[in-house]
Amino acid sequence: MELELIRWLRERVPIDSRAPLGLSDDAAVVSLPGGSNVIVTIDTLTDGVDFNVEKHEPHRIGRQALAANLSDMAAMSAKPQAAVISLVLPRSSGEESLILAKGLYEGLLPLADEFDVAIVGGDTNTFDGPLAISVTILGQPTGSGPLTRSGCKPGDWLLVTGALGGSILGHMLDFTPRVREAIRLHDRYELHAAIDISDGLALDASRLAAASGCGAVIYTDRVPISPDAFTLAEQENAPDLGAAALQHALSDGQDFELLLAVGPEVAQQILRDKPLECAVTHVGEVASAIGLWQQDASGTREPMEPRGWLHQ
Amino acid sequence: MELELIRWLRERVPIDSRAPLGLSDDAAVVSLPGGSNVIVTIDTLTDGVDFNVEKHEPHRIGRQALAANLSDMAAMSAKPQAAVISLVLPRSSGEESLILAKGLYEGLLPLADEFDVAIVGGDTNTFDGPLAISVTILGQPTGSGPLTRSGCKPGDWLLVTGALGGSILGHMLDFTPRVREAIRLHDRYELHAAIDISDGLALDASRLAAASGCGAVIYTDRVPISPDAFTLAEQENAPDLGAAALQHALSDGQDFELLLAVGPEVAQQILRDKPLECAVTHVGEVASAIGLWQQDASGTREPMEPRGWLHQ
Repeated sequence: MELELIRWLRERVPIDSRAPLGLSDDAAVVSLPGGSNVIVTIDTLTDGVDFNVEKHEPHRIGRQALAANLSDMAAMSAKPQAAVISLVLPRSSGEESLILAKGLYEGLLPLADEFDVAIVGGDTNTFDGPLAISVTILGQPTGSGPLTRSGCKPGDWLLVTGALGGSILGHMLDFTPRVREAIRLHDRYELHAAIDISDGLALDASRLAAASGCGAVIYTDRVPISPDAFTLAEQENAPDLGAAALQHALSDGQDFELLLAVGPEVAQQILRDKPLECAVTHVGEVASAIGLWQQDASGTREPMEPRGWLHQ
Repeated sequence: MELELIRWLRERVPIDSRAPLGLSDDAAVVSLPGGSNVIVTIDTLTDGVDFNVEKHEPHRIGRQALAANLSDMAAMSAKPQAAVISLVLPRSSGEESLILAKGLYEGLLPLADEFDVAIVGGDTNTFDGPLAISVTILGQPTGSGPLTRSGCKPGDWLLVTGALGGSILGHMLDFTPRVREAIRLHDRYELHAAIDISDGLALDASRLAAASGCGAVIYTDRVPISPDAFTLAEQENAPDLGAAALQHALSDGQDFELLLAVGPEVAQQILRDKPLECAVTHVGEVASAIGLWQQDASGTREPMEPRGWLHQ
């Protein structure tokens, strides 16, 4: 539904010199008159979709809401500067609402501090519905400019940070957004394009490639699979643990890792240099034809469904 | 609850040079490193609180969500430049969600165009709850700088635009945010402080004064009462129509008019010049003692409860 809405909006939202990228990326670049570029993102996380208030403590949920937005900044390789927070709390006694709101902020504020983000404002509401948290972050491009989705070139290597899948076991709440990693890479190497993996490697790889008018090939034997993906597969009593864990790594939501498109030589340099504390894995390539393929260890390539975690 | 949360947050959110005003105004001023000041506001409107999806067409609701945020920009006398929109739609069929989302944007986009605001991004989610719309606007101060709540001086006249009360009959959806009026006044006259009346004249006057360490006196015989406030009083079969309509004008939410604190001489100049197309009324004054009073035609002054439309 969201994609169809975006297509509809693209025809109706006038081209504006203040929005040089249009509606295409994880965050928007705003070119303010007489000012420098600002990078802005808004994201709302809701109970029952992104977290579960019955299971997760408020401080973890508050942290997650800011972290998910920081991940969008990472995808653009932007330096986050300031955030505004809008809480929509389930109607209850004023005291319960206050306890919940404080709990959310108790998780959010330390992460803001860790990433040097100023909390500059917000609003708080109650209504007859589940908890929803909207966060807007303002950031700035670094010296290398904003990194976008649309710079993939056929033949680029696809690199991914960290390991994928099974984030529902806790990573989705406790992950560290890849802001520092993105800025360090973008600062030292020529990167072509990036996206953060919020809806699964397969789906987000296809989005990244499509934004560049290209396709993507995923090397299924090289996908870095998180231990949590194996744990999930075990919990499901999957007959083939490896295959089930791979499916989690390909299609689970909320990994919040970076997927980068980089020219082959630069990609090899990154893999040699190991400039990050986390793993960086060569997980596929950009194809000239639009579409998504999986390629196994033998080199056999097959079309692949961009299955992933769709919000609607 | 929100006020208590803000007090709690003020003790915990570190002082940051990027947020020179702290958490005090309708919108935040963000001083970006190496860049100019950006004014940012976030506001979430929800079904059952700010509008009613059973009664109000989607295009009116979408327009309202942007207009309410533009009103916060008006309170700071900022020029709105760009907005990001986050929709949280009640779970239903994809087609119904799409129709609702398009409807919301069909009201929002023309208002964005009217106020020259670029829609630069957003996100769309569905969940098991009522419709919620978060809007973030980025604006810029005009040459006169941002107008804040904290500049009231004892003896200032309180001026209000338009007429108040009864906005539930339609004004709360169809009002025109006072962005142009605020910029014109701030450009031509020395204004001390401003707030937009979102929760009722009495409550917002007390907030404006309190943010300046002052009190407020409302001249109850001079409050400009909207015809809708009288209509409401009639519908309620109020024994004293005038008194009931005045109560609506003092305490109804969502008027979205401007309340300004201005030195007496400048205020008289504004009242003589009539620089706006809408009415400007001298409705009270700033007092040196903290508190809220009402003063009738005879000059009798009595303490007044800051009753208003509280979101929680």
